[in-house]
Amino acid sequence: MRRALAILPALPCLAAAAPAPAPSPAKQAAVASVERQAPEMIRMADRIWGYAETALRETRSAALLADHAEAHGFRVERGVAGLPTAFVASYGSGRPVIAVVGEYDALPGLSQKAAPRQEPLEAGAAGHGCGHNLFGPASLAAAIAIQERIAAGELRGTVRFYGTPAEEDVGGKLYMIRAGLFDDVDVALAWHPADEISADTDGSQAVVDFLVEFRGKAAHAAVDPWDGRSALDGVELFAHAINLMREHVKPTARIHYVVKEGGEVPNVVPERASLWCWIRDSDHASVDALVERARAIAEGAALATGTTSSLRIQSGDYEMLVSFEGAKLLHENLSWLGPLEFTPEEQAFAREIQRATGVEPAGLRGAVEPLDLEPGPPEGGSTDVSDLSWKVPTLHLSVTTAAHDAPWHAWPVVAASGSSIGHKGMVHAAKALAATMVDLYQDPERRAAIAQEFERRKAGTELELYLPPGPPALPKP
Amino acid sequence: MRRALAILPALPCLAAAAPAPAPSPAKQAAVASVERQAPEMIRMADRIWGYAETALRETRSAALLADHAEAHGFRVERGVAGLPTAFVASYGSGRPVIAVVGEYDALPGLSQKAAPRQEPLEAGAAGHGCGHNLFGPASLAAAIAIQERIAAGELRGTVRFYGTPAEEDVGGKLYMIRAGLFDDVDVALAWHPADEISADTDGSQAVVDFLVEFRGKAAHAAVDPWDGRSALDGVELFAHAINLMREHVKPTARIHYVVKEGGEVPNVVPERASLWCWIRDSDHASVDALVERARAIAEGAALATGTTSSLRIQSGDYEMLVSFEGAKLLHENLSWLGPLEFTPEEQAFAREIQRATGVEPAGLRGAVEPLDLEPGPPEGGSTDVSDLSWKVPTLHLSVTTAAHDAPWHAWPVVAASGSSIGHKGMVHAAKALAATMVDLYQDPERRAAIAQEFERRKAGTELELYLPPGPPALPKP
Amino acid sequence: MRRALAILPALPCLAAAAPAPAPSPAKQAAVASVERQAPEMIRMADRIWGYAETALRETRSAALLADHAEAHGFRVERGVAGLPTAFVASYGSGRPVIAVVGEYDALPGLSQKAAPRQEPLEAGAAGHGCGHNLFGPASLAAAIAIQERIAAGELRGTVRFYGTPAEEDVGGKLYMIRAGLFDDVDVALAWHPADEISADTDGSQAVVDFLVEFRGKAAHAAVDPWDGRSALDGVELFAHAINLMREHVKPTARIHYVVKEGGEVPNVVPERASLWCWIRDSDHASVDALVERARAIAEGAALATGTTSSLRIQSGDYEMLVSFEGAKLLHENLSWLGPLEFTPEEQAFAREIQRATGVEPAGLRGAVEPLDLEPGPPEGGSTDVSDLSWKVPTLHLSVTTAAHDAPWHAWPVVAASGSSIGHKGMVHAAKALAATMVDLYQDPERRAAIAQEFERRKAGTELELYLPPGPPALPKP
Amino acid sequence: MRRALAILPALPCLAAAAPAPAPSPAKQAAVASVERQAPEMIRMADRIWGYAETALRETRSAALLADHAEAHGFRVERGVAGLPTAFVASYGSGRPVIAVVGEYDALPGLSQKAAPRQEPLEAGAAGHGCGHNLFGPASLAAAIAIQERIAAGELRGTVRFYGTPAEEDVGGKLYMIRAGLFDDVDVALAWHPADEISADTDGSQAVVDFLVEFRGKAAHAAVDPWDGRSALDGVELFAHAINLMREHVKPTARIHYVVKEGGEVPNVVPERASLWCWIRDSDHASVDALVERARAIAEGAALATGTTSSLRIQSGDYEMLVSFEGAKLLHENLSWLGPLEFTPEEQAFAREIQRATGVEPAGLRGAVEPLDLEPGPPEGGSTDVSDLSWKVPTLHLSVTTAAHDAPWHAWPVVAASGSSIGHKGMVHAAKALAATMVDLYQDPERRAAIAQEFERRKAGTELELYLPPGPPALPKP
Repeated sequence: MRRALAILPALPCLAAAAPAPAPSPAKQAAVASVERQAPEMIRMADRIWGYAETALRETRSAALLADHAEAHGFRVERGVAGLPTAFVASYGSGRPVIAVVGEYDALPGLSQKAAPRQEPLEAGAAGHGCGHNLFGPASLAAAIAIQERIAAGELRGTVRFYGTPAEEDVGGKLYMIRAGLFDDVDVALAWHPADEISADTDGSQAVVDFLVEFRGKAAHAAVDPWDGRSALDGVELFAHAINLMREHVKPTARIHYVVKEGGEVPNVVPERASLWCWIRDSDHASVDALVERARAIAEGAALATGTTSSLRIQSGDYEMLVSFEGAKLLHENLSWLGPLEFTPEEQAFAREIQRATGVEPAGLRGAVEPLDLEPGPPEGGSTDVSDLSWKVPTLHLSVTTAAHDAPWHAWPVVAASGSSIGHKGMVHAAKALAATMVDLYQDPERRAAIAQEFERRKAGTELELYLPPGPPALPKP
Repeated sequence: MRRALAILPALPCLAAAAPAPAPSPAKQAAVASVERQAPEMIRMADRIWGYAETALRETRSAALLADHAEAHGFRVERGVAGLPTAFVASYGSGRPVIAVVGEYDALPGLSQKAAPRQEPLEAGAAGHGCGHNLFGPASLAAAIAIQERIAAGELRGTVRFYGTPAEEDVGGKLYMIRAGLFDDVDVALAWHPADEISADTDGSQAVVDFLVEFRGKAAHAAVDPWDGRSALDGVELFAHAINLMREHVKPTARIHYVVKEGGEVPNVVPERASLWCWIRDSDHASVDALVERARAIAEGAALATGTTSSLRIQSGDYEMLVSFEGAKLLHENLSWLGPLEFTPEEQAFAREIQRATGVEPAGLRGAVEPLDLEPGPPEGGSTDVSDLSWKVPTLHLSVTTAAHDAPWHAWPVVAASGSSIGHKGMVHAAKALAATMVDLYQDPERRAAIAQEFERRKAGTELELYLPPGPPALPKP
Repeated sequence: MRRALAILPALPCLAAAAPAPAPSPAKQAAVASVERQAPEMIRMADRIWGYAETALRETRSAALLADHAEAHGFRVERGVAGLPTAFVASYGSGRPVIAVVGEYDALPGLSQKAAPRQEPLEAGAAGHGCGHNLFGPASLAAAIAIQERIAAGELRGTVRFYGTPAEEDVGGKLYMIRAGLFDDVDVALAWHPADEISADTDGSQAVVDFLVEFRGKAAHAAVDPWDGRSALDGVELFAHAINLMREHVKPTARIHYVVKEGGEVPNVVPERASLWCWIRDSDHASVDALVERARAIAEGAALATGTTSSLRIQSGDYEMLVSFEGAKLLHENLSWLGPLEFTPEEQAFAREIQRATGVEPAGLRGAVEPLDLEPGPPEGGSTDVSDLSWKVPTLHLSVTTAAHDAPWHAWPVVAASGSSIGHKGMVHAAKALAATMVDLYQDPERRAAIAQEFERRKAGTELELYLPPGPPALPKP
Repeated sequence: MRRALAILPALPCLAAAAPAPAPSPAKQAAVASVERQAPEMIRMADRIWGYAETALRETRSAALLADHAEAHGFRVERGVAGLPTAFVASYGSGRPVIAVVGEYDALPGLSQKAAPRQEPLEAGAAGHGCGHNLFGPASLAAAIAIQERIAAGELRGTVRFYGTPAEEDVGGKLYMIRAGLFDDVDVALAWHPADEISADTDGSQAVVDFLVEFRGKAAHAAVDPWDGRSALDGVELFAHAINLMREHVKPTARIHYVVKEGGEVPNVVPERASLWCWIRDSDHASVDALVERARAIAEGAALATGTTSSLRIQSGDYEMLVSFEGAKLLHENLSWLGPLEFTPEEQAFAREIQRATGVEPAGLRGAVEPLDLEPGPPEGGSTDVSDLSWKVPTLHLSVTTAAHDAPWHAWPVVAASGSSIGHKGMVHAAKALAATMVDLYQDPERRAAIAQEFERRKAGTELELYLPPGPPALPKP
C-alpha cells in the first residue's frame, strides 16, 4: 500500500540509521514474548484469513481477537461507538496511555487460495487482499507483550489494543474517535502488511467517500420512454464528466467509483440510480475542492438529464500527519531487529506471483529501508489511521508480508497473507511494535519530542471527521 | 401497452362493426357464468395484487389459480416446462383444443396503494404495474365458463387454461412452447389490461433480451490504477455507443438497458461489470440486425477499454402475427357486449391519476374501439403472447382497466388494477373471451378461416425461440 | 425528402383523382411554353449544377436566373432582405399576386459526377445533393409561361418569381418574409425534386437551428492542465447528454449536430468550443420544448465541466401548414399531365444507383401518386417553404428527379440531378406549376377556398420567425 | 515550462555551486558583446512579438533573424529541410562545431497586449504564449558574440545558429535532424523563456502527435439518419474512451486532443471527422505503449459506431537526454553572471498577473536555482530540442522572462514576453549562452566529458524520429 522512494543509503542528506541503543531488559523480554506467542498468532491469522469477513461483518474475527485479549487479562469493551465489531481492550492504569490498533476486515470478490497463481477458494467470495488477517494478531501480540511487562511491574501506565473494524469501508476508527475513545491516548501505533520493511514517513492520502444519487421518472421503456427521465442517464453523464475532469486535476489526485444502483429491469426507465465514489489527494483541502467540483458535476448531470441529484458524504480520511520523531524511534528498533530472512521456497512463491502479474521477479524484500525524512507527496492510498494521526501522535510501520511490487487489493496479497510469508512478517511487526512501545514507556523525552512535533505540525488544525451524523448503516445479516 | 390510431368510425375504409350475430344459448350461458363468477374473480385478483410476486417467484399467485381450476374440475399439471410457477389446466377431450392464457407476475419497485396519487404500499417493493393480477382470473373464468358448457354437453372438445409466468422477464410462454405444451392447440386467446376496449390488430414488437458482460483486470484504485482495466469502463462505453446508435436506427426501434453489475467497491478497479439490454423493433429480422450492431459495440467497447466482453441472448419475442380473422370475431363479441360503464367515482379516480401524471384528464374509455384492418407498425411493447402467435393462431383482446393515456408499468396502473376499475375491466374481458370461445367451438368455418390466414401470413417462417438451452435461472428464494 | 404512405388508390377513403377539367386555352399555351423553354432550362440547370454554390455563396447561380428573368421582361430587384443572392422578379400588376419560389444552393462535401456510382468531381467540393439546380429553372420557366399569358392579355394580375437562397442553411425565405416581400402575395407555389410525383400533403417538420458555445479556461495541456477548463469537455458532455435524451423524445423528433469549433491545438486546453445543432419535430411547439431541454443540457454540461455556455438560436422553420385545397388543384393538373416516362437507360441508371446504395432496384417512379387527405406526421425534413406556408397559402409539389428510395442529401441525388432524369422531372414540374397557376388566375372560387382553409387551419397563430435580429452573417468570400 | 524541485542549497547531496572559474578575456568580451547588442535584440524581439506568426508561417520572423545573421557575416542557408522558414547560419570553419538554436513560432488564439491583465490585441489572433519572440534573438546574439571572437582569432572552430521553426506544431528540428543538418555538430545549446533561472536537468517529456480519422456514411440527418453512420460518433466515442483511460495511466502521462473536423452541417450525417491528439510521458517507450492503446481505442470506437478509423503519427519527440556535465558548465556561468535584478515596476507587473491568475503574488524570480543532479520524472511539456539531445549532446538553460507560477501557453506569458521583463531575461540568456560557448571552445576536456556522458546515457539507443515520410504539409498562405 505504500512505496518509499528508492534512495541510496550512502547519501548523507538522508537520516542515517542511528546506532541502535542497547536494548533494555524490558524490550528484550517483550520481543521474546512475541516469539513465544508466534504459534498462537499464526493460528488466529489463519482463522481470520479463512473467515474473510468484510467491513462491519467481522463478527467472528473480532470475537476471536477480543476473546484472546480477555483471556490475557485485558478489560474488553465490545460493540463500542455503535459498531458491533469494534472493541477496546485495556490493561494497566494511569499515564502514559500507549495504544496499538488492529484491523480485520476483508475485501469482497477477492477470494483466493494460498497459492502463487490466481485461484479462488470460492468464486465471488471475499478475501484478505489487504493482509488485515495479519494486522490484528500482530498488534494484539505486541499489546500482550507490554501487558506482561506492566503485570511484572517493569513498565508503568496503560496499554490498549483497539479492534478497529471496517477500515476498507466506512472507517471504524472515525466512529471510535468521535466517540472519544482515543481522548486520553498519548501515542498510538499502527503497522500495515507491505512489500518492504520501513518506519513510514511517506504518509497517506486524504480521501472522501460519497454517494451520488439520481432520481428520474419511471416509464415503460418501450411504450412511452419519452415520458420517462432515466436516473441512469444521470449516472452515466456524471461518470463521463468525472472522467473528463481527470485531465484537469493534479497528478496526485485519485478518483474512482462504482455504479451502485443501475436500474431494475430494462423495460422500466430507471427512476433511481446511484454511483459510489471516492476522491483522494495529498491533503484534505485539495480533496474538499475536488468534492465541490463533483458536486457541481452531479448538479450539472441532473440538469442535463432532466433528473435530480444529491451528493452525500459517507466517510473520509485526512492525509497522514507523519510523526518523524516517532519514525526515528521505529527505525531504530527495526534496525536493531535486523532484516527478515525468507526461505528459498518463500522467495520462489513470491517470484511466481511476480511473474504471474507481470512485475519484476525480484522476490521478497527483507532489508530495513532507510529512513526518509524528505518524502514527496504520499502515494495513492488512504487509511483511517491517518485520522487518528490528527487526534494523537501516531507511529506507522510497514513490514514485508507480500511479493515486492505485486498488485495490492488483489489476489497476490490474499495468497501471501495466507502463507508463511505473511506469518513471518506478522511476527516481525509485532516485535518491532513491542520494542518501540517499551521505549515509549521508558523514555519520557522521546514521548515529549513526539508530542511537540505533533502540535507543531498540526498547527491548530482541528480534525473535522468526514462522518454523517449517527452510526453507520450496518449490512444486513 | 397498446394504442390504436384514432380513426373516425365513419370512414368507410375501416371495417364497419358487422351487426352482431344472434348469440347462441351456449354463449349466453357462458357470459352468465362469468357474471356469476365475478365476486370470486375479484377476490383472487385482489389477493394476487397483494402478493405482487415478480417473475418466477409467483408461487402463491400460481397456486391460487391452479387450485381454483382444480376445484372446478380441471386436470392441472403444475411446474411444467421447468418452471415451478407454470401450469396447464385442461378439461374435456378431443378437438378443437381452445386455449386461453393467464399471466400473474408483478414488476419490481412499483409498490403502490389503490389510490389515485403516488403512494407506495411498501417502498421498494413490487407492484402490479402491468395489471397481471387481473389477467389470470379473467382468463380462468372464461375457461371455467367453457368447462361448464362442455360438462353440460353443449360444446365439444377441450378447453385449456395456461398459467404462464414471468411474462415481464424470461417469458414463461417460450419455455412452454419449447416444451411442446401448445402443440395440439387449435386457437389460443389472450387479453391484456389496457386503457381502451378493442380487438387488437396493432400487434406488438419483436424483442431480444441480452446480457453484455465485461471482464477487466482488478487493481487497487489508488495505489496502481494504471495496472487495472475497468470492466465498468466497458459498460460505460457500451452504453454511450448504444446512445449514439439511437440516431441511426429506425424510429420504430426501442433500446433500453440497465447496469446490472457496476463494480463492488470504489477502491478496487472493477474486474466484472455487466449491462442488461432489450432491443425491440417491428419485426424480428430488424431486431436481429440491431443485436448484431450491439454485438459489434460490445466488441468495440472492450477493445477500447482493454477489457473483454461477451453478449449473451437470454430471451426474446417475435412480433405478433396478427389474426385479422380472429380480431373480427372478437370485435363482433365486444360489439355485442357493448360499452363498459364506469361510475362517476371511477371516472374521478381516473382523472385524478391523469392530472397527477400530466395527461389529459379524460377519464376512462368504455366504448368499443373500431376494428382497424390497416394498422401501422406496432407501438412500443412486446409480449411472449406474440411467440405463441407464430405457433398457433392467437386472438388478442384489450379491455379498459386503467386511466386513458396514463403511464404504463408505473404506479397509475398498480392503483387502477387494485380498484373497482380493474375489477370491472377484468369481468368484461372474461365475458368477451368466453363469448368468443363459444363461437370458436361452434363455428368450424371461422376456425378454418383463422387457420388459413395463419398459414398464409406465416409464409413458412418457423419460429426460432430466442432461448438459451436449458431452463431459466431461477431467482434465489 | 418526402415519402407518401403507400396507399392503394382503390380505397375509397382516399380522395379519388377527380376527372381532370377540360384545360383552358391559356393552360394549354402555358404548358406549351414550358415545352419550348426546355432546352434553355436544361442549360441553366446544368450550369447551376456545375457551379455547386453553397448557401449565401450562390452568386453565379442567382445572377444566371435573375438575368434570365430580366431578359424575359421581369422587373428584378436583387440583393433583397440583406441577402446578396436573393432577388424578386415581378411581371404584371394588380391582384391576384401569384408567386413561385426557386432555390439554388448546393451542399458542402457532396461533389459527384453525373454517374451512377460514387465518384466525386472534385473531392471535398460541394454538390447539388438536394436537386436545387433543377428547382430554380423549373419555377422560373413556369413564371415565364404565365408572364407570356399576362403579356398576351389572357391572364390578369401579377406573377412573381422569388429567388430564395440558402435554404439548406440560414433559410433565405425567412429573411425575405421578415422584409415584407411576401406581404401582398395571394398564393405561393413551390416544388421540390423528389423520387415520386405528388401533390404534397405530408407536410414537413418544424426545425430550430442553434449554436451552443462553451467557454473554458486555457492552460498548457502538459504543464498545468489542472489550471485549465476545457470548453471541448463542455461540447463532449453536451453531445453525450443529447444522445442520452434521444431515448426520451418522441419518435418523430430528429436531432443532429456537428462540432463546429473543437479546439485549436492539442497543447492548449481549449478556451472556446462550439457545437451546431438542429432539432426537428412534427410541430414547432414540440421543437420549442426540445430546445428548452437542450438549453438545460448546455447549462448542465457547463456546470459539470467548469465552463460557461450559451445557446443561440440562429434560424428555424415552422412545420408546413398544408393547403389541402391547393393540393387538390395540383393533383388535378398532375393527373391531367399524366405519368412521366423514363427511358430504359434512365431506369438502368437509377437501378445502378439503387444497387450501389443497397435499396430495392425498382428504378424511377413516373406515376402520379394518389392524393392523401389523411396524412400521418410529417416525415423527417424541413424547409423554409413551410414558414412561407404560415404567411400565405402555399401549394407544394414533388416531381421525380431521382431514383426511388436512394438516399437524399447524398451523391445519388447529385448524380441524377445532373442527368436527363433530373432534366425530365424539372420540365414536368414546370408544366404542373404553370398549369396550376393558370387555374389560380382564372378561378377566384378556388383561390377563395384556399384562402379560407388557410385562415381556418392557422387558427390565429401568427408566425414568429426563428431569426436573430439583423441580417445573417455572410460567408467570407 | 519547467519546475525544479525546491531543494535547500545547504543540503550536501545537491551539487553545490562550484566556485566560478576566473572568466577568460574571450568570455568577458563575448558577454560585453551581448550587452552591446541588447537594443537591437529588443527591437527584433518586439517585432517578432508583433508578427505573432504561427508554426510554418513564421516568414517575417525567420527573415528578420536570417537577414540579421547575414548582416553579421554568417553564411545563411534558408528554406532548409523542406521548411520555408528554417535556416542555418554558419561562421568559421573546422572543429569544434558549436550550435545554438532559436525558435520563433507563436501560438494561435493567444493574442494579448503587453499588459498585466487579459486584453487581446486582436481577438482570436495568435500570440507569443511560449516566449519564442525572445528565443531567437537571444540565441542569435550569443552566436554573434562568438562569431566576433572567431573573427578576432580568439576562438577556433565553427559557430552555428539554427533557425528552427514550428516547435509548437510539427517540430522543425525533427526535419532538420533528418536532413542531416546537425550531423557534424559537437555540442548544441538551447535556452527557453521561463519563470526562473536554471541550468536544466529536469528534462522534458516524450510526446507523440497523431491524427485519428473516422470515415462513416453520409445520409440526410432528418430523412434517413438510419442509413447513415456518423464519423463524429467515432470521434466522440474515441474521446470518451481516452478519458476513461486516464484513470489507468501513470500520473506522469499527459494526453490532450482537439476535434479537428467535426462535420460540415447538421443536416448531413458526417462522413468524415477527425481528432488531433498528443500523448506524453517520461520516456518514449511509455508513450509508444500509450499510443498503441489509443490505436486500439480508435479501432474499438470505429467498430462500435459502424465506421472505419485510422491513426496516423504526424510528429513526436523523445524525452530529453539530459547532459549533467553540460548543466554543470551552464550552472557555473549562471552563477558567475549572478542574479537578475528586476525593477519595482516589473515586480508589480508580475504580481498583478499573478493575482489575475490566482497564484501567489510572489513576483519574479531572479536568483539562480541550485543545480539538481537527482531530478525526478520530467514535468509536463515536450520540445523538439529533446530529439536533438539524442543526436548531439545538448545543453539547456532556463531564464526568467515571466511571472513565477503564472500559467504558460496563456496570456500572462504573451504579456511578459512583450515587456521589459522578457527583454531583460532574453539578454541574460544570451550572456549565459555566450559565456558557456566560450568555455566549450576553450576547454576540450569539458567537451570530452560531455561527449562521454552522452554516449553512456544514450546506451546505444538510436533516435527514430516520429516523422512520416516527406516534408510536412504546409499551411495555406
